[in-house]
Amino acid sequence: MGEATIERTVHETARREADAPRSLVARLDRPLTLESGAVLGGVRVAYQTYGALNAERSNAVLICHALTGDQHVANVHPVTGKPGWWSTMVGPGRPIDTERFFVICSNVLGGCMGTTGPASLNPETGEPYGLDLPLVTIRDMVAAQAALVDHLGVRDLFAVVGGSMGGMQVLEWAASHGDRVFAALPIATAAKHSAQNIAFHEVGRQAVTADPDWREGRYLVEGAIPRKGLAVARMAAHITYLSEPALQTKFGRNLQDRAARTFGFDADFQIESYLRHQGQSFVERFDANSYLYVTRAMDYFDLAADHGGVLAKAFQRSKTRFCVVSFTSDWLFPTEDSRQIVHALNAAAANVSFVEIETDKGHDAFLLDVPELIATTKGFIDSAARARGLPPA
Amino acid sequence: MGEATIERTVHETARREADAPRSLVARLDRPLTLESGAVLGGVRVAYQTYGALNAERSNAVLICHALTGDQHVANVHPVTGKPGWWSTMVGPGRPIDTERFFVICSNVLGGCMGTTGPASLNPETGEPYGLDLPLVTIRDMVAAQAALVDHLGVRDLFAVVGGSMGGMQVLEWAASHGDRVFAALPIATAAKHSAQNIAFHEVGRQAVTADPDWREGRYLVEGAIPRKGLAVARMAAHITYLSEPALQTKFGRNLQDRAARTFGFDADFQIESYLRHQGQSFVERFDANSYLYVTRAMDYFDLAADHGGVLAKAFQRSKTRFCVVSFTSDWLFPTEDSRQIVHALNAAAANVSFVEIETDKGHDAFLLDVPELIATTKGFIDSAARARGLPPA
Repeated sequence: MGEATIERTVHETARREADAPRSLVARLDRPLTLESGAVLGGVRVAYQTYGALNAERSNAVLICHALTGDQHVANVHPVTGKPGWWSTMVGPGRPIDTERFFVICSNVLGGCMGTTGPASLNPETGEPYGLDLPLVTIRDMVAAQAALVDHLGVRDLFAVVGGSMGGMQVLEWAASHGDRVFAALPIATAAKHSAQNIAFHEVGRQAVTADPDWREGRYLVEGAIPRKGLAVARMAAHITYLSEPALQTKFGRNLQDRAARTFGFDADFQIESYLRHQGQSFVERFDANSYLYVTRAMDYFDLAADHGGVLAKAFQRSKTRFCVVSFTSDWLFPTEDSRQIVHALNAAAANVSFVEIETDKGHDAFLLDVPELIATTKGFIDSAARARGLPPA
Repeated sequence: MGEATIERTVHETARREADAPRSLVARLDRPLTLESGAVLGGVRVAYQTYGALNAERSNAVLICHALTGDQHVANVHPVTGKPGWWSTMVGPGRPIDTERFFVICSNVLGGCMGTTGPASLNPETGEPYGLDLPLVTIRDMVAAQAALVDHLGVRDLFAVVGGSMGGMQVLEWAASHGDRVFAALPIATAAKHSAQNIAFHEVGRQAVTADPDWREGRYLVEGAIPRKGLAVARMAAHITYLSEPALQTKFGRNLQDRAARTFGFDADFQIESYLRHQGQSFVERFDANSYLYVTRAMDYFDLAADHGGVLAKAFQRSKTRFCVVSFTSDWLFPTEDSRQIVHALNAAAANVSFVEIETDKGHDAFLLDVPELIATTKGFIDSAARARGLPPA
């Protein structure tokens, strides 16, 4: 390992740590007993809030982020300098209007943006946890969020909203803390992770752990970063977030600036250089061990299995209003997955609406400025707010 | 690198080389001028034949193999000990009946089972070519096959048959040497590689080249093998050969023998251990640089682009009879790709039939014992044989 690389590694670790204070951090005063049975003490939850809690404490909205998201839902990201990942959806005058709602978004347990995760210091050793952090599940992530919400003095959430892994957390909130959730908006998600999705995650994990710079998970201690492995993992995953028609429209077989094929292994095609860029930029902002932990949490998610194999039982006697959203070209979490959620909610006699949005943007549509998604969210939130007796915007 | 690994590497290189003589090898007496413009001398083409050429030399069938296939279409594979990769389709009494036809199958140019490829010795250096081998294309593969067919004293092929990349070769044969092809059966293929497929290939190549044991392509000289990278590439690719419903049926979320989740990163789910096995066993039989070359050849394939952007022009005045086959659950080469071939053949007024076979087996269906595929092939071959005036079986 060259000196430049070591310097870079140290610089980045420092940068990541220095970033944490830019978010608020709640230090949980009680240890979390995880689904695995392990007890995790000293948990920190990094979060952002937007807007103000009303006097009745009835206008709080929790946003749950996806696999590689974070708490910076509606502010400029401190590492990438890009707008918040859901600034189309959350902000002044947006469907989740920060002039109307008190919006909370926290980094998930196991993440790498300030919440306790494998890159956090293990208080027992003074070194980053690495693989010594116990495995966390979607239910554990939700438990940490619930502790944060308590910490903020909020009992009832007006709404819990999220897409993809965020949608899994929404479903878990409705199942585990249904009495605290007035409205739930799970988008492009599933009540269990499919075999194909587990397969893609396993490829990503193998790519990370195949990188010798992963150092059996001890790369932070040893001053390395498994860049190449994590980039490959991201590239494979990124394909699954898009759709074949969108790739065809956006890239097709277009070549890079060069007019002709080079008859070599450079990125001749635009899609190749696009993917390589996605892989490389991901490494700048994400921790490799976090990628292992959070993908594993998704793989383990199976809400029916937690309720005797019957998904409807997860939502028994639910008073929560649901709006379930899927996208026609999403092949990672296809509409069929959303339909299974809706069937279970119907079987539980829950209040549910279901919207399948026509788009060629694939799974990533939940993050994009898709007018029908914006309109659906606004309609659902406004209607639920009226039902909740919140003043109009 | 440990001694055991070095020994294993040497052993395997030796085994692979020792294997070549088990196939027949044609040494082309003229250099090939490749599509890139490079001139490649000393080309060897390893092949197998089955059955006998008739006196009229009119019963030759060329089988074209897919990305990781080889010439061992209907005999026990000398490395894996498994039956030939298409023994359901080729053999005595099979649709491509070796008691009736003279069947030829050769390892593709760029391959690693005896035909000249990146693992072959470069006569100029006495070392394996590695990345010094010029890039080859599907058209170059077909040129090498044509030279082999000449070498065997065969002018006209009764049929050219293949699936996936083999189907690309079938289309290229019909386009470049149409007057030598009586019947063509391209299965589960496309006239051009899609953006999504290029993307998956690029992930695989990045996985290989990210492995430090790839040694910038010089691993054979340096006594290494990029096992981990190649295994990851294979795992990602393998997912694309299957279908979500098939994965769901075969594996679902089934756990391994252990009754419960381990809350760790072992292969808890059956799909994980299946994929890991696919990756590991692939490394035993395939050369990493070959994987780069052959995936690149597929990416470069765009038959319309070679004919002024109009696919129909590739088949102008074609006298070949075509049967185009696709599978409903194949998302790598979806039916739409086959339809585009059929439209072009129709526009060129070619003789074409088209069969879309209902199956949940995904792209891999072309390799499997799918009764409708067997029946379609038998029907097409028998009918073409009658039209060719070949005696019945």
